[in-house]
Amino acid sequence: MTRSERPASINDELVFLPLGGTGEIGMNFNLYGYGPATKRKWLAIDLGITFPDASEPGIDVIMPDPIFIEGERENLLGLVLTHAHEDHIGAVAHLWERLRCPVYATPFTAAMLRGKLAEAGLLNDVPLHEVPLGGHLQLGPFDLTFVTLTHSIPEPNAIAIRTPLGNVMHTGDWKIDDAPQIGDVTDIKTLTAFGDEGVRAIVCDSTNVLSPGRSGSEADVRKNLTALIGTLKGRVAVTTFASNLARLSTIMKAAEANGRHTVLVGRSMHKVTSAARETGYLKDVPTPVSEEDAGFLPPDNVLYLCTGSQGEARAALSRIADDSHRHIALSKGDTVIFSSKIIPGNELPIFELHNRLSERGIDVLTEKDHDVHVSGHPCRDELIQMYQWIRPELSIPVHGEPRHLLAHAELANELQVPEQLVLRNGLMARIAPGPAQVIDDVPAGRLHLDGRVLVRAGEAPLRERRQMSFAGHVVVSLVVDDDGKLLADPEVACEGIPDLEEGLSVEDTCREAADDAVSRMRKSAARDDAAVAEAARRAVRGRLRFLWDKKPPVRVLVTRV
Amino acid sequence: MTRSERPASINDELVFLPLGGTGEIGMNFNLYGYGPATKRKWLAIDLGITFPDASEPGIDVIMPDPIFIEGERENLLGLVLTHAHEDHIGAVAHLWERLRCPVYATPFTAAMLRGKLAEAGLLNDVPLHEVPLGGHLQLGPFDLTFVTLTHSIPEPNAIAIRTPLGNVMHTGDWKIDDAPQIGDVTDIKTLTAFGDEGVRAIVCDSTNVLSPGRSGSEADVRKNLTALIGTLKGRVAVTTFASNLARLSTIMKAAEANGRHTVLVGRSMHKVTSAARETGYLKDVPTPVSEEDAGFLPPDNVLYLCTGSQGEARAALSRIADDSHRHIALSKGDTVIFSSKIIPGNELPIFELHNRLSERGIDVLTEKDHDVHVSGHPCRDELIQMYQWIRPELSIPVHGEPRHLLAHAELANELQVPEQLVLRNGLMARIAPGPAQVIDDVPAGRLHLDGRVLVRAGEAPLRERRQMSFAGHVVVSLVVDDDGKLLADPEVACEGIPDLEEGLSVEDTCREAADDAVSRMRKSAARDDAAVAEAARRAVRGRLRFLWDKKPPVRVLVTRV
Repeated sequence: MTRSERPASINDELVFLPLGGTGEIGMNFNLYGYGPATKRKWLAIDLGITFPDASEPGIDVIMPDPIFIEGERENLLGLVLTHAHEDHIGAVAHLWERLRCPVYATPFTAAMLRGKLAEAGLLNDVPLHEVPLGGHLQLGPFDLTFVTLTHSIPEPNAIAIRTPLGNVMHTGDWKIDDAPQIGDVTDIKTLTAFGDEGVRAIVCDSTNVLSPGRSGSEADVRKNLTALIGTLKGRVAVTTFASNLARLSTIMKAAEANGRHTVLVGRSMHKVTSAARETGYLKDVPTPVSEEDAGFLPPDNVLYLCTGSQGEARAALSRIADDSHRHIALSKGDTVIFSSKIIPGNELPIFELHNRLSERGIDVLTEKDHDVHVSGHPCRDELIQMYQWIRPELSIPVHGEPRHLLAHAELANELQVPEQLVLRNGLMARIAPGPAQVIDDVPAGRLHLDGRVLVRAGEAPLRERRQMSFAGHVVVSLVVDDDGKLLADPEVACEGIPDLEEGLSVEDTCREAADDAVSRMRKSAARDDAAVAEAARRAVRGRLRFLWDKKPPVRVLVTRV
Repeated sequence: MTRSERPASINDELVFLPLGGTGEIGMNFNLYGYGPATKRKWLAIDLGITFPDASEPGIDVIMPDPIFIEGERENLLGLVLTHAHEDHIGAVAHLWERLRCPVYATPFTAAMLRGKLAEAGLLNDVPLHEVPLGGHLQLGPFDLTFVTLTHSIPEPNAIAIRTPLGNVMHTGDWKIDDAPQIGDVTDIKTLTAFGDEGVRAIVCDSTNVLSPGRSGSEADVRKNLTALIGTLKGRVAVTTFASNLARLSTIMKAAEANGRHTVLVGRSMHKVTSAARETGYLKDVPTPVSEEDAGFLPPDNVLYLCTGSQGEARAALSRIADDSHRHIALSKGDTVIFSSKIIPGNELPIFELHNRLSERGIDVLTEKDHDVHVSGHPCRDELIQMYQWIRPELSIPVHGEPRHLLAHAELANELQVPEQLVLRNGLMARIAPGPAQVIDDVPAGRLHLDGRVLVRAGEAPLRERRQMSFAGHVVVSLVVDDDGKLLADPEVACEGIPDLEEGLSVEDTCREAADDAVSRMRKSAARDDAAVAEAARRAVRGRLRFLWDKKPPVRVLVTRV
């Protein structure tokens, strides 16, 4: 046991620092630090992405800003990945160059990550080490044991962290499923034994803390989907999250039980099943039929397993709904089953997809009317169970918006956990020795992948784009002589603004306003480029505000010839 | 009875034409036509707005394009309003000038509309006629009876339409509530008697057709809210839709029963309650306390009744959550009850509001955890009841997205209604004589209120704004002589684009690209403005695409001096 081998020295501290995942569900990035304040060694767990909402147009993905740990790179011992969901591994390929540390993961997670690293051309750069399920790892003062849990992806691991100053249970994402259909059940024995050792802190998933009861078992989904598909005639398409391998297996077996061949549709379906077969999963399901070959099967003998459950415009199901898919056509009397939940924010595109399918006479079945989905995160009764196994002194809720973190802390309090600590990204807390306490507030934030450039959230470009989306954009070009006399009519580019005056284009409206303003300037002022630009800008902006009741950004370019 | 007085002539037809409300929930605008095809008389029912989603930035409200009926203005007999919700009356003030017809409404609806017309300066222009509840109206060939229903606003009316060619039941929005708390219960006697006469068609609300069972009664909400508020200490705020007067009354009485004074917070709360008192409602509730005076009350004796249940940024509750409200401050231990549903698309702003309240220690209670809301639209069992009362030959589902309309038609089919007709806005259907049939497809669409200008949906400005929100905007100004020689460095305005090259602003990147391209042009080509602009545009766009992987709109302004 490391703990006895390496006694803590008097100045040592164990700290926890979330850089992502507190304040949002997604973009997980957690740091543990050990040592005296002046020379801590760091351990990172997970490095995920999140997705933009409508207020972030033109952003592809969002990830944590690693600037703090970049500065501590030489003390970063490694990055441990708990499981292969995008919000836990999705930023590795984008940010590894800034960290350059070894990466540790169990086989399926490693296979999924290798796919991403290969696409980014980083496969030979990143030192990626596979850890077996239930494996053990020593990284400096951190003694790590991977503990098998259940979730909605293969190989979800909690990390049991032992340090000379105490133990921490870092749960990652989990639920309790006694029949997960793929992989082992929750390793209650190891969890309980770790609890028996004494656990200083649990850092725990908060996603479903607002939901009472339990999340339910994949076994029930398997039973229900098999029965439901048995009642259907014609073609059946089922959509779900590709990474939910147990669900894919459920659907393939439900198809088989009903005399249907499964067809995988969508790039992620192929990626995930290929990583799965590479690591020994999916051995007991029949080989899928190709999209081309499926065209020769009678409708009653086919089941399409599709990406696109969130209404993503370019995913397979959306193309099928538009009847623009290369190989697959559904028609009146066929059925689409959404074996998935609606991620908040995706309601409108998903309902829109339902509408497009309905309009073509295709039946749409969802978890609202049939029990064809279970969540991968612990509801309240499961959280209570985990606290009974671990019995921590301190609860640190993560993986949640503020309302989830606060409700989780309240639950921990009800469960008699002596201390609770609700953090936000960037707050560094000492968790041992002594009572938990925030001791620093380090730079944290979000990076936006904007085109192929990483831009810090809050910087000008996105703000400007948002402003233009409301009010358009005007640029006026003035060519003047030394005295500020216009040498030509002002040229104007307006984008995103309707015509505002009868018989006049909006460009003409702006041109007249600029021309007037500049022509009326006193000669002394007109000798100053900035004054000329400002006079024209104010005139154009004022005119647009009067006619349109909006104030678009107006830029004036002055060229003096 | 009109029917016997005015026999149908041989060429007469009865037609129905939805110009809003089929394909969306909101923006209702229905037309009925009667007469020979060449000279139909028209009746309009409702003229509402809907609200933009995230793909429509800078648009305030959306309304039906009335262009078809504008052209038939001299044959438009009147506009009848069923009830005062925004999606039924919200466009009247915007579009009445284009229709210039008399408007008919029951007293509360008329009072609400007068408020809007006054704000638009139209109060003295619009001929607004009040019809009593259960009243009767003859408009040319249309004999109209207002039938009292129940809904989530006072005075919801169905319109029983009698014509020489048959009867139509136009339901408007409704539910069946045996104890609506304000107003009468559903006038089953009149509905049944109308059904006994024989009804050719029902044009009916589809909003909740996907929900089984019944919508529930306001009486239950009253009981539950009263009990719930009785358990709370500290300040209580309740938010709901201001137009739901029964709910306001429920909340005020629940406050009173628990020794709390109600404080109205938010402009719409005052508007609605003032229209209500003006028309004889709210006589039995205690007078609210002003925001200022409430500051002197102990926390346990106050209840704030607030706007902002949908997370609207400028509404009362959002300002309270930010602690930026002028008179009202909530703090740790206080409670906010959302006595409302989440309108699809509003999930993220509402959860964000929950987060802001939670972070300040304020408890958030919603319909998810307590039974504090019921819908105002009929679920399946209520629809079945209505079909039993009316027994129509033809079902025309309206007030729904395609998936709702189609499910409603399927339900009608199951109920043995002989004909069902699913329309979209702009499809004109003959509903008598003979089997229902689509006979025309007239111009229909949406108008966007963009600033203070009405713009047809699909036109360039919004598309351009959306494009700029993804990729920014570049304008390059070139000043050249007759031979196309640059007389000054190109001037560049970039908006919404990050810097892409080390040590170079994005403007400089564009400037260099434009300069290069123009300098390399052959003299003959450089004499043509369009050729110069295109060369610069392509160079800038190509450079940005290479560096950024996006293609922003690029405009080049050429001035020849």
